[in-house]
Order: sequence, then C-alpha cells, then structure tokens
Amino acid sequence: MSYVVTGASRGIGLELIKQLLDLPASQVTKVFALTRSTPPAALQTLLDKHADRAEHITASVNDTQSVQQAAQAVEAKLEGKGLDVLINNAGIFGAVSTNGATSIPPEELARVLDVNVVGPHRMMSAFLPLLEAGKQKKVINITSTLGSLALSEHYTFAPVPPYKVSKTALNMLNKQYALEYKGRGFTFLAVSPGWLKTDLGGPHADLDVDVGVAEVIRITLEATPEQNGQALNIRVPGMEERYDGKVVPW
Amino acid sequence: MSYVVTGASRGIGLELIKQLLDLPASQVTKVFALTRSTPPAALQTLLDKHADRAEHITASVNDTQSVQQAAQAVEAKLEGKGLDVLINNAGIFGAVSTNGATSIPPEELARVLDVNVVGPHRMMSAFLPLLEAGKQKKVINITSTLGSLALSEHYTFAPVPPYKVSKTALNMLNKQYALEYKGRGFTFLAVSPGWLKTDLGGPHADLDVDVGVAEVIRITLEATPEQNGQALNIRVPGMEERYDGKVVPW
Ligand SMILES: NC(=O)c1ccc[n+]([C@@H]2O[C@H](COP(=O)([O-])OP(=O)(O)OC[C@H]3O[C@@H](n4cnc5c(N)ncnc54)[C@H](OP(=O)(O)O)[C@@H]3O)[C@@H](O)[C@H]2O)c1
Ligand SMILES: NC(=O)c1ccc[n+]([C@@H]2O[C@H](COP(=O)([O-])OP(=O)(O)OC[C@H]3O[C@@H](n4cnc5c(N)ncnc54)[C@H](OP(=O)(O)O)[C@@H]3O)[C@@H](O)[C@H]2O)c1
Repeated sequence: MSYVVTGASRGIGLELIKQLLDLPASQVTKVFALTRSTPPAALQTLLDKHADRAEHITASVNDTQSVQQAAQAVEAKLEGKGLDVLINNAGIFGAVSTNGATSIPPEELARVLDVNVVGPHRMMSAFLPLLEAGKQKKVINITSTLGSLALSEHYTFAPVPPYKVSKTALNMLNKQYALEYKGRGFTFLAVSPGWLKTDLGGPHADLDVDVGVAEVIRITLEATPEQNGQALNIRVPGMEERYDGKVVPW
Repeated sequence: MSYVVTGASRGIGLELIKQLLDLPASQVTKVFALTRSTPPAALQTLLDKHADRAEHITASVNDTQSVQQAAQAVEAKLEGKGLDVLINNAGIFGAVSTNGATSIPPEELARVLDVNVVGPHRMMSAFLPLLEAGKQKKVINITSTLGSLALSEHYTFAPVPPYKVSKTALNMLNKQYALEYKGRGFTFLAVSPGWLKTDLGGPHADLDVDVGVAEVIRITLEATPEQNGQALNIRVPGMEERYDGKVVPW
C-alpha cells in the first residue's frame, strides 16, 4: 500500500514516516514524505535508509499550485498505480489569546484556517483522482479533541480559539467529503492523535509521540468504509478517560 | 437598547432593521445598519423614515480596517453610551459542488471562511469594548442548521461544503467567545433563522423572511447569559419538526 503524509519534517509527521517504513515492504510499498522545505537531517536519514520505498516531495499545504505539482510528482512516481492512503497531518497551532478572543488578530485566524482547513481541502482535491485509482481509498485528517464543540467546556485551559475553530471546521470538511464520496469505497476519517510531545504539543503533553502515532497507524490500518466521516480518538490502556479509542463527540 | 446589524442591504439584514425600528423607541433607542456599499432604496427609505433612531455605517466584514472604522463611527454616535446588541448577519453562500467536494476551488473555501467566520471575529473583536460598556452585552451570530455536524446526513441535498464548513466554524467561534467572556454578563448566541426566501435562500425556501426574522428578534430579546454559547433554532408553530425553537445539536 502507498502513503502520502504531509508535514513530514518533524513531530507527528516525521514519526508517521518512521513507523510506516518500519512496517514490512509487503504492507507498505511506498511512502511519500511531503515537506515545505529541504528535509531536515532526521527525515533525510530515514529517506536514505529506505531509498527503495521512501520518496521526498516538496509542497506547502497553503499553496494550491505547489499541492497540485506534488500530486503530479506522486502520480509520476506511482507509475500508473493509484494512491492508497493520504494522511493530512501538516498543521499549525496559531496564536494564543492572551487577553480574550478579541486579542486574536483577524489575519491570524485567517492564516490558521488556511493551513489547517483549506490545506487539507487542497490536498484532498488534488489527490482524489489518485486515491480513486487506489485500492484502499483512505484519507486520514489529523484533527484534535480541542476541536470538539461538545467537549469545549473541558478545554478552556487551552486558550487557542483559531486552532480550535480550525479543527471543528476540519471535522466538518472531513464529513462533507465523506458524504459526497459515500458508497464509492472511500473512508474519510478525522483522527485525534492524543496530546503528544512535539513542538506543537509542548514538553508537558500526555504522551510520547511514538505512542500516539502507533495508534494513528493502527486506526488507519483498521479503518473501514463503515467508519466514513467519523472523528476517532486513540486508545491508550490505563488512560481510557482521555483516550478511549471511540468516536469523539462533535 | 442599541443595535448593530451587518449585511443590512437586503434579505434578513434589511428585515432585521425594519422589524427593530418597528419596535417602540422605549425598547429600541438606536439601530446601526451596516452595509458595504451605498444603501439600496429599500434601506434608505427605512433610514429616512426613522432618522431619529436609524444610522447608516459603511463596513465590509472582510476588511479589518473598515470594521475598525465602523466601530469608531458607532462609538462616536453613541456619545458615551455602550452598545447593547451586535447581530452578525452578513454572510455568503459560496460555490455549490457540482462534481463532488473536489470541484470547490481552494480559494473559494478561503473566501467563504473569510466572510462567514473571520468576518464575525472582526466584528466581535472591534465592537467588544463597546458591548462591554453596554447594558445587554448580547451578540447574535447568524448561523445555519446546515453547519450542524450531527444533522449533516439530512442536508446532503444542499451541496455547499464551504458554506457548511463555515457555519460549523462560526458555531465554534461563538462558543469560544462565550467561554472566554463567561461570567461577565455577556450572551453569545448562534441563531439559525430558518430557511428563508432571500437571494441566498432562494424562492423555494420554507418561510417568508419576516417570519424567520421575527423569531430571530424574539430569541434576541429573550436571550439570557444562561444560554451563552448555544446554537438555537427558531420556533414555528405547525413546523416543529424543522423549527422547534430548541438548541441545535452540534
Ligand atoms: N502534538 C499534539 O499534541 C497534537 C494534538 C492533536 C492534534 N495534533 C495535530 O497533529 C498535526 C501535527 O502536529 P505536530 O504536533 O507534529 O506539530 P509540529 O511538531 O509543529 O509539526 C507541524 C508540521 O506541519 C508542517 N507544516 C506547517 N505548516 C505547513 C504548511 N503550510 N505546509 C506544509 N507543511 C506545514 C510543519 O512543517 P515545517 O517543519 O516546515 O514547519 C511540520 O512538519 C497537526 O495537524 C496538529 O494540529 C497535534
Ligand atoms: N436565507 C436563508 O435561508 C438563511 C438560512 C440560514 C442562515 N442564513 C444566514 O443569514 C445571513 C443573511 O442571509 P440572507 O439570506 O439575508 O442573504 P442575502 O440575501 O444574500 O444577503 C446577504 C447580506 O450579507 C451582505 N454581505 C455579504 N458579504 C459581505 C461583506 N463582505 N461585507 C459586508 N456585508 C456583506 C450582503 O451585502 P451586499 O448586498 O452588499 O452583497 C447582504 O446584505 C447569512 O449569514 C446567512 O448565512 C440565511
């Protein structure tokens, strides 16, 4: 199976590339690591080690043309085969509201929406024909429980309105794709990876990045069209109160 | 009580201005009608008829500077009094997906998010100091049940992903303001006005614009801080299946 992963330079994206390439070649035939700049050393080492199955492609998810060029580059490398799985992982945390939501500059909200919502739309839109030709037809949109309207009272300790609004919107975008391509073998899933120790998650996060990413990969491998459109949480034994592996309430 | 209403040139916004000015001067002291261009004849007639209580202000909700200038203009006209109610009504329907969600240009999704989500943020951000000084401290964000994640299976007949995503995001933005200004007398409500016969709603909509707008005004007048953060539906006797006056599921 072939995979495209955005935001592969660091954090969750880099770990996704690592763990996917750790799977046997019979299971993972090709991994396309998308970054917006030159691959950092950690990614380059992985690419070199798995040169037969790993490919690097440059793309900024906030730039429509660069995403379309990335889709063309992936298509050329797939040599007529379709793409099986797209993981929209690239994302930004945006500004913290230091003095109430009014302190967020409108341009900052627009920027976060552009990367975290329009970005995945650019990717899905450009890669859909390739996914249509793939066997698995899976799209994983990396969301966050911070985007849950139902849970928002519990997350007032994280004052990031643009980020939260963007992930709520991403859940709806995922749902819209799920409904518009229903019955055609697709599985669009929004997956919350847990609060992980990355640059975005910070050092006080709940889990090491490999724990959350292993769960994202499990969910991806087990995903079926019956789950199409859902938002799913990871499952962590002993931490079921936060990570129950179930559907995240809207 | 003083009111600011965006998108007052036509449709729901124009009818809001009309019905607010029909209320006695003891109840509605001042109505600021915001439009992005010269007031059309129907609005100008209303402004002339109620010259003592009606004011026109120019503002495009997609332009931060013009919104900030509008707040300054309103502040000057209020002569030291605060603003009581802000109604964020201006909005656009955006493109229809003729051939699946992929057919929506990314720039179109960005445009709809900018007007329907960043627009209300610009307004709330600029007018919050004035609302803080007002007695009612009410903000009504005009949303749509099309933005409900929980109801999205029922609305597949309306293929407008950008619009739906924008209203889901607006519900979360409303919720974030509600939580960040909780306990300070504010009431942030997302209100779904019903499917109304306007340019946006089209001629086959359920209800005449005056019916839905009367409900929006009732909800606004009855709003209390206990409802802060909710999304509410209008109530229409005999059509309770669609319009039950209750909280819209997320
Ligand atoms: N960490 C958590 O606790 C957590 C929890 C829930 C959800 N998530 C989600 O998981 C995803 C990854 O987060 P992370 O923790 O790995 O964050 P991170 O360590 O900050 O990494 C973000 C990644 O996104 C890339 N990126 C940002 N803007 C981009 C753009 N315009 N075009 C292309 N790539 C771009 C970054 O590339 P550069 O290196 O070039 O900047 C980087 O690879 C995000 O969607 C985030 O919202 C994270
Ligand atoms: N009609 C329905 O069935 C329905 C249902 C649910 C929710 N809503 C919501 O109700 C609100 C009003 O809808 P409507 O039916 O009255 O639509 P409409 O008849 O198309 O009127 C839209 C209004 O928004 C204004 N507007 C658009 N972009 C603007 C901008 N950038 N800056 C300032 N003003 C702008 C328009 O001004 P111009 O005249 O200058 O273009 C016009 O006054 C919208 O938020 C809509 O989503 C409507």
